[in-house]
Amino acid sequence: MFEIKERDGLARIGEFETEHGTVETPAIMPVVNPNKMTVSPRRMKETFGAQILITNSYVIYQTEELRKKALEEGLHSLLDFDFPIMTDSGTFQAHVYGDVDVDHQEIIGFQKRMDSDVSTILDEFTEPDDEREVAEEKVRKTMERARYAVEEYEDEKGHIALPVQGSVFPELRERAGKEMKRFEGVYPIGGVVPLLENYRFSDLVNIILSSKKGLGAKGPVHLFGAGHPMVYPLAVLLGVDLFDSSSYIKYARRGDLMYPDGTKKLREIEHFGCHCPTCMEHEPAELREMEEGERTELMAEHNLWVCFNEIEKVKQAVKEESVWEMAERRCRSHPHLLSGIKEVYDHWRYLERFEPRSRHGAVLYTGRGTLKRPLIRRFKEWVMEEYEPLFEAPTILFDAEEVNKPYNRSLRDELSRLEEAGANILFSTPLGPVPLELDETYPVPQSVFLDERKGKERKKELERYKEMKDLSEMVRYDDLDTLDEFSGNAGMCLDDMRVKTIADYQFGKGAGELFVQGKTEYVKNRKGRIKNVMLDGKHVLSLRHYDGLFTLKMAGAMILKEELEPPRMRVTVTEDSAEFNSQGKNVFCKFVIDADENIRPGDEVLVVDEYDNLVAAGRAFLNSQEMSDLKRGIAVRIREGRDDWSKKD
Amino acid sequence: MFEIKERDGLARIGEFETEHGTVETPAIMPVVNPNKMTVSPRRMKETFGAQILITNSYVIYQTEELRKKALEEGLHSLLDFDFPIMTDSGTFQAHVYGDVDVDHQEIIGFQKRMDSDVSTILDEFTEPDDEREVAEEKVRKTMERARYAVEEYEDEKGHIALPVQGSVFPELRERAGKEMKRFEGVYPIGGVVPLLENYRFSDLVNIILSSKKGLGAKGPVHLFGAGHPMVYPLAVLLGVDLFDSSSYIKYARRGDLMYPDGTKKLREIEHFGCHCPTCMEHEPAELREMEEGERTELMAEHNLWVCFNEIEKVKQAVKEESVWEMAERRCRSHPHLLSGIKEVYDHWRYLERFEPRSRHGAVLYTGRGTLKRPLIRRFKEWVMEEYEPLFEAPTILFDAEEVNKPYNRSLRDELSRLEEAGANILFSTPLGPVPLELDETYPVPQSVFLDERKGKERKKELERYKEMKDLSEMVRYDDLDTLDEFSGNAGMCLDDMRVKTIADYQFGKGAGELFVQGKTEYVKNRKGRIKNVMLDGKHVLSLRHYDGLFTLKMAGAMILKEELEPPRMRVTVTEDSAEFNSQGKNVFCKFVIDADENIRPGDEVLVVDEYDNLVAAGRAFLNSQEMSDLKRGIAVRIREGRDDWSKKD
Repeated sequence: MFEIKERDGLARIGEFETEHGTVETPAIMPVVNPNKMTVSPRRMKETFGAQILITNSYVIYQTEELRKKALEEGLHSLLDFDFPIMTDSGTFQAHVYGDVDVDHQEIIGFQKRMDSDVSTILDEFTEPDDEREVAEEKVRKTMERARYAVEEYEDEKGHIALPVQGSVFPELRERAGKEMKRFEGVYPIGGVVPLLENYRFSDLVNIILSSKKGLGAKGPVHLFGAGHPMVYPLAVLLGVDLFDSSSYIKYARRGDLMYPDGTKKLREIEHFGCHCPTCMEHEPAELREMEEGERTELMAEHNLWVCFNEIEKVKQAVKEESVWEMAERRCRSHPHLLSGIKEVYDHWRYLERFEPRSRHGAVLYTGRGTLKRPLIRRFKEWVMEEYEPLFEAPTILFDAEEVNKPYNRSLRDELSRLEEAGANILFSTPLGPVPLELDETYPVPQSVFLDERKGKERKKELERYKEMKDLSEMVRYDDLDTLDEFSGNAGMCLDDMRVKTIADYQFGKGAGELFVQGKTEYVKNRKGRIKNVMLDGKHVLSLRHYDGLFTLKMAGAMILKEELEPPRMRVTVTEDSAEFNSQGKNVFCKFVIDADENIRPGDEVLVVDEYDNLVAAGRAFLNSQEMSDLKRGIAVRIREGRDDWSKKD
Repeated sequence: MFEIKERDGLARIGEFETEHGTVETPAIMPVVNPNKMTVSPRRMKETFGAQILITNSYVIYQTEELRKKALEEGLHSLLDFDFPIMTDSGTFQAHVYGDVDVDHQEIIGFQKRMDSDVSTILDEFTEPDDEREVAEEKVRKTMERARYAVEEYEDEKGHIALPVQGSVFPELRERAGKEMKRFEGVYPIGGVVPLLENYRFSDLVNIILSSKKGLGAKGPVHLFGAGHPMVYPLAVLLGVDLFDSSSYIKYARRGDLMYPDGTKKLREIEHFGCHCPTCMEHEPAELREMEEGERTELMAEHNLWVCFNEIEKVKQAVKEESVWEMAERRCRSHPHLLSGIKEVYDHWRYLERFEPRSRHGAVLYTGRGTLKRPLIRRFKEWVMEEYEPLFEAPTILFDAEEVNKPYNRSLRDELSRLEEAGANILFSTPLGPVPLELDETYPVPQSVFLDERKGKERKKELERYKEMKDLSEMVRYDDLDTLDEFSGNAGMCLDDMRVKTIADYQFGKGAGELFVQGKTEYVKNRKGRIKNVMLDGKHVLSLRHYDGLFTLKMAGAMILKEELEPPRMRVTVTEDSAEFNSQGKNVFCKFVIDADENIRPGDEVLVVDEYDNLVAAGRAFLNSQEMSDLKRGIAVRIREGRDDWSKKD
């Protein structure tokens, strides 16, 4: 029912299948009030491109005429909308008015009977200031109702929405998520409206992430009640798939226009700065003088345009793998959003599991936060903690600010002398200390930074590096008088150093030396850059131009499989799947038995059968958790199948 | 010919008058190629709302047929555009091709003869890597040609554009600006295209600001060749009024779509994320498959929509006085733009002269740069260097993070005890240390900050404060055991302290005590907040609710005039003007003889005649430099005229 088609970290473009059609996520579900449709469902679809709507089953249930019609003709006929429709259950009404006049069995049954595509259980709305015990009790009740709904309707058509509650308690949210994950459904994150209303974005981030930790890769995940476009990029960054919005109409009624970076009052606007049809066809003053009903409708349409447009932008960002940039920029719209993204960085260890080692585009620095992105921190941490300088000689230091990238080409002459002498070369960069061997590897040459580090910070980083690597000496190149002291250290050429270091970074400790032990030869391009690594005459690795990381060839995969203990780099598949994969066909989630938890999306992997026989080499699209949580879609894109694999090896 | 209508610091909405109509600035002048009009001038106006175009007189001059027609029928008939048209002179062609085939007398004369609204002299394009001497010589030549053009055509209709050149040398730019300022005209800042192309935004900022320093408040200022919307907010922030753009078509030809935050390649786009007519009516794939001419036209139109839309947004920001926020946010789009805004902060002393003491909206923190805005730095500096604590008793410190704003209301009980004891109260805030007396004054309660200061920074600030104020002791309220040590210090109540401090901050040293020396009474609102200050029975000041600063009443103005030596707070006007101003009519620039250079836009001022007789009290719209540089428009908005003023006092 839910499948990830494209991704950027936790952000994803997904396909959510329903009885009335497939929804491409992230998607907005505009709220339609069955009693008063300011913008008709048909118009929502045809003009604004809405793929799915949401309406309130409790309102229908309470209005005799609507209820009758809904039960007789079905929800889709009632709303005159032949596309997916989700229904809410009255939970929010209970939150606002204290109680609702229906029990949970009745309302879920009603939704089912009128043929809702996504029926929501009557969950218990946890308030941000609920005591822990109260919140726990509400989660327990919600769980009970979820179980009832799932068991009662498991054989029927249509999805059930199973909200994750838990107030602002991260462990409770995570636990609630973990419990809901056992059922198939749609997973709203509930109880967040009061946080959104009070701009408590740091709490919001915490809640989304703890719910996601519980839910794993399951989806679609719905941020219930989030209707303002200013939160979309942040929420999508964290893996939210669905938004609903009645804000478009609520804001319009009180004279407010939504923009991606905030809200403006119509009465204060002289220039719209927007080219949606409302703003193109009317002047602000004209709108102000209009009769209220007409004005509200036009403003609601402006708000819808802005919402749908912003979702398009986020989707384009997922496609370009630039959601981090987009979210970081948008979060500058309000100090409280900024505190939201700061909260995100604090969760980097979790987020890192979903982060590729490289992206299509450059890393564009948007501020100091950029340095706290999981991809960057992982890189910095690896250099600081895992990287092994190859020589015991002093390390020569260059200041990256004074050298064009890639460093090795700007410093060709200097480096050839140093290489001969066998020195370690280090660059002090905004990404921290970077050894020469990684100067063509993502994100080093692909990052555009503004170096805002203070002198003290740089010094501290370098001192830490010196300590971590147990270096006897670190000399600035400019302070270097002679190369004499290095004599006798040489032994490994820069090419070897580079291959060893990149392979260690990419495939893990010990992988690098496997490729430089034998007779290594390099095929280079015209600029002298390594293209292919040949070991004992076999093509084992190709160095990708765009990110300076390796593509694994079958011969290389064989070596890694032989030398690295399971489960390293492995994705274990069923025998049936192996048959296909050995012929070069992709690995699908449902055939994955197990996978190395250190695999990151985009990583080169070894596809093996249950007996650890190599089946194919490929590139992971998902990490191990995702491979296990998802029922559909590609897990590994196979590059090379092993045609001599056979069922019984 | 140029008048400032609305403003936000150096940013301004202006009116630029020409023979073919008035242009509201900031404005974009789309470049029209007379040989190939992808978007017709008529469509530029009717569809995109262009108020003014720019075309190249050298191209017309060189094309026999066009030249003939232009001379016979005039430029406006040639382009079929009855609105203002500016012409360029061939300078850029000389920059690109090394030389042009016309001399400067000929080309300026040609422009004049075909009735251009703004004729540009053939200036010498200074390159960013010109040697200082080369750049100086070019500036000298440009100046000579400017003088020729102005003298030759001073009695004729139409403006002359007088470019400020000077490569990347700030003093040279400033000097060039100062020389051009002597002539009336349009003031392009030239030679910036190579900087724009290479994203050298820090140099660009430096050049704009040094040119502006030379030009003073003169306008309109045109950033020659700046066509990408990503630079508009930054440039408008610095006082640029006109942009020209051929980028819309150049980008379209090479398959690029402009966005406010950068450029995207059509081939990489799956979701436009834009609702301009091009993007609303076509899918990216559809556009890609189109015949080239049609695609280019549609893409050029998208680019125009985005440019015009962004200018609308900047104008709205000027209106809302939120250009700083907008520029700071937009500059997160690219690390090099970020280095541009950082350069802006370095010029805060200059920018501060144009900054009001309060704005309509809140100060929304967008990052650490926000703390470097001139308004904030002035406030911080005043507290640190000018503010005088009233008591010699220890200072009690509160942490603003733990107190809601306004502080005095959240801490009512604590404060009444402290007030009785006569203690100085200080808050440690993201704006630095803030004394209680200023807790309702802009920007303290109107700022929404994320406190990113480190503990060390806070401590340092407080230590500096302690040192500056020569405080014997500073005690955290939480650490306070008893109030005994304060006994006997009391004497001035919080209300008096507040009035004295705010008046000192707003009107300058010594002003405050004038209002609390006599018999002071306060009229308060229901919440206990001061509304009016009565001194010896007279209403002297009103405390504005929205910014916690004073509005000066006539009785208060009389006191300040008597006690503060000229030129403090004065705007001196001619006798003719005084006659009008004493009747409550506004002061216009051309009648201003002199003004206190400490006056900032928005300040309360004393309007006096040449004999220093008080004529009226009002609010400055301009600072003293602007009052002297501009020929048109309001200098001071009079609030209260002095009806007993008479010509001979």
